Amino acid sequence: MNPVEIIKKKRGGEKLSRFELEFFIKNFLNGKIADYQMSALLMAIYFRGMDDEETTILTEQMLHSGVVVDLSEIPGIKVDKHSTGGVGDKVSLILAPMVAACGVPVPMISGRGLGHTGGTLDKLESIPGFNVNLSLEEYKNVIRAIGLVMIGQTKEIAPADKRMYALRDVTATVESIPLISGSIMSKKLAEGIDALVLDIKTGRGAFMQSFEGSIALANSLVRIGNSMGKKTLGFITAMDEPLGFAVGNWLEVVECVECMNGKNVSDLMEVTYVLGGAMLQLGGKAKSVDEGIFKCKEAIASGKAYKKFLQLVKVQNGDVSFIENVEKYPKSKLEMKVEAANDGFISAIDSLEVGLTAIMLGAGRMKMDDVIDMKAGIMLKKKVGDEVKRRETLATMFTDNISISESAKQRLQNSFTISSSQPKKEKLIKAVVDEKGVREL
Amino acid sequence: MNPVEIIKKKRGGEKLSRFELEFFIKNFLNGKIADYQMSALLMAIYFRGMDDEETTILTEQMLHSGVVVDLSEIPGIKVDKHSTGGVGDKVSLILAPMVAACGVPVPMISGRGLGHTGGTLDKLESIPGFNVNLSLEEYKNVIRAIGLVMIGQTKEIAPADKRMYALRDVTATVESIPLISGSIMSKKLAEGIDALVLDIKTGRGAFMQSFEGSIALANSLVRIGNSMGKKTLGFITAMDEPLGFAVGNWLEVVECVECMNGKNVSDLMEVTYVLGGAMLQLGGKAKSVDEGIFKCKEAIASGKAYKKFLQLVKVQNGDVSFIENVEKYPKSKLEMKVEAANDGFISAIDSLEVGLTAIMLGAGRMKMDDVIDMKAGIMLKKKVGDEVKRRETLATMFTDNISISESAKQRLQNSFTISSSQPKKEKLIKAVVDEKGVREL
Repeated sequence: MNPVEIIKKKRGGEKLSRFELEFFIKNFLNGKIADYQMSALLMAIYFRGMDDEETTILTEQMLHSGVVVDLSEIPGIKVDKHSTGGVGDKVSLILAPMVAACGVPVPMISGRGLGHTGGTLDKLESIPGFNVNLSLEEYKNVIRAIGLVMIGQTKEIAPADKRMYALRDVTATVESIPLISGSIMSKKLAEGIDALVLDIKTGRGAFMQSFEGSIALANSLVRIGNSMGKKTLGFITAMDEPLGFAVGNWLEVVECVECMNGKNVSDLMEVTYVLGGAMLQLGGKAKSVDEGIFKCKEAIASGKAYKKFLQLVKVQNGDVSFIENVEKYPKSKLEMKVEAANDGFISAIDSLEVGLTAIMLGAGRMKMDDVIDMKAGIMLKKKVGDEVKRRETLATMFTDNISISESAKQRLQNSFTISSSQPKKEKLIKAVVDEKGVREL
Repeated sequence: MNPVEIIKKKRGGEKLSRFELEFFIKNFLNGKIADYQMSALLMAIYFRGMDDEETTILTEQMLHSGVVVDLSEIPGIKVDKHSTGGVGDKVSLILAPMVAACGVPVPMISGRGLGHTGGTLDKLESIPGFNVNLSLEEYKNVIRAIGLVMIGQTKEIAPADKRMYALRDVTATVESIPLISGSIMSKKLAEGIDALVLDIKTGRGAFMQSFEGSIALANSLVRIGNSMGKKTLGFITAMDEPLGFAVGNWLEVVECVECMNGKNVSDLMEVTYVLGGAMLQLGGKAKSVDEGIFKCKEAIASGKAYKKFLQLVKVQNGDVSFIENVEKYPKSKLEMKVEAANDGFISAIDSLEVGLTAIMLGAGRMKMDDVIDMKAGIMLKKKVGDEVKRRETLATMFTDNISISESAKQRLQNSFTISSSQPKKEKLIKAVVDEKGVREL
């Protein structure tokens, strides 16, 4: 079999057979098919797409390029959540302990932030001592012990995805639904889960900005998950303004700690409860999503979710004293207010711009080797729909990088749109996607 | 500037600026842009195309990646011909000396055969001793001395094209009109020519099988040539059946020698005279193509063309005795006739199949390092329109590879279609393309 003929076939819009896809990926991994041939195929896939069967085969190949963790010895239906990423999306930090507190084991392998959206791993690492680099053996031990574990991708997990993603990143072939699906699902299915809930973000601050694109991605992810024997449920949720008030790693941890202690940050908790309800239903601990939501609310109200979080921090070597007293944390050199230029209502907060401003402040990376300032970030004081007066504070910025503070301030101020009439609030949970299709909410 | 952004721009169907194209090609050549990024861009160009301005910039970049020969010291308008390649396309071997004999200097740098079409270099090298590997200094000396030179591409000529073509070949990005145009024109314009005649083959045995594709390629080539200050004229000619009777390197040389000595192989000479007439017009030795054709016919009839060919063979170290007595040449071990299965008229000869059969016999290569048997090939005895009786000879095969002879025979026989009624002869010269556009003939 000839790699050029396979590229040519996809280039012409034909479907690749299992044999052809396996041949291509295996020989790419063993070095017989060159990077330049893979990148040509990836670009052809970008233009021609792949159907569900091809995407599933691709996912299987990437999944089985590495270790697939076996958690069958651990009782219960193991359920995880994956988000396509958003600005201020700190859901996992509340969701995972909340669901685990309700008796559903949550084994979670997460990624780092790149570009304008943050990563769960970076947020966890802002807790002094917290160790996300567990071996797969330690990973198993932690979930066995406390029903919850949160780590980073290890070398053993889906090495094919790692190599293909690195290539896609430098060849402008990231934005392809089958390739995104294969990349996400190969890593998630390697965790040893039985079921998966997906949070597909849509809107200005999302990876997939258009609603149609988000629907297409959700359908692809859900169908692959189900076709590989894992019950998979997707939610399309709004990412127009940042989720919650905090943007920046430690700031987001603090917001999560407050929420687990009963504070109601309404958009953040609405998403967290819906995803949690679905995880409980898939995990067999609730008959419906609504019943699951009810149980999740109980787990927060009773303090069980927070207790589970403390347990997690402790077992993964984090210093719990910082969680119990968040004021202990080091402070940024500069704290700067951004004020409203006039009276009115907040009609939009451009989450992409907020995310990019947070990077300027030191809270994220544009390149994989950029170093993050864990303290840095933004605390919004106003959200969409709120009324403001001129000179009232819209947000506070935290940074050690004093030289960029003026331009960051300008950028952050420009992220807010103030209008004279109160805007209609958009739905936060826009649609649910299961194997039967999409249901808009 | 970021290579990923440039790939993304072309991927999105946008036009690349001069600055972006120059940046990409220069950094590819100096190793700062990797092969896998170039192949992704090439695939994006395959899908999105490039306009004339982009293609011209690409051509300029590839041209100036190497030496552009300066032939200004040599008097006269230097004119060359390029063919996109066909089965039995031996035109250059008659055309170049014929045109040179009429006083137009012809500096010709040619390629080798790959796939089902033959290459001028291989045909010339079938003449014992003939040296196509001249340095650019020797190249200049030969054209200065005899007004004609025929060599292979040197290392100094368009190295960017060499690297890009090698990459396209293994990444299924060959069949792209702007990339083909850039590749052809960068090499041709490096020769030091003032004008160029193009023979764009169309039909079953052509690289570009569809008429529309051939027109598009011709338009692209002609516009680039003219936009770079070289008068360029294109002809679309039929490549449905092989051109002439001989297919195979030495067999084709013999057919050319016979034609230069007055034999009228009608399709071969029709193409040769039209291209020659156009070269004489562009070269300022005829007021019209028709007057040029008239002068070319004189050069053949008077023996001047043949004399010029002998001069070329001699000056490039070929053994003229084989030309003067073609019977001296070694013979193939096997000579095998292919017979008609029934009475009727030849309605088609599949030139692609004939070309592939010739490769089986040893006359061509599928990979660049295959070794050619110069004696091997096919002599057609019948052409489209001819009447045949059952068991009459359709063609004779020559090979040293006895083991494949039966399957080659079958394949060659299947290349002929015999029908009960005489087919309508299609036009051989289908269209002429100049800077004003296409004129169908």
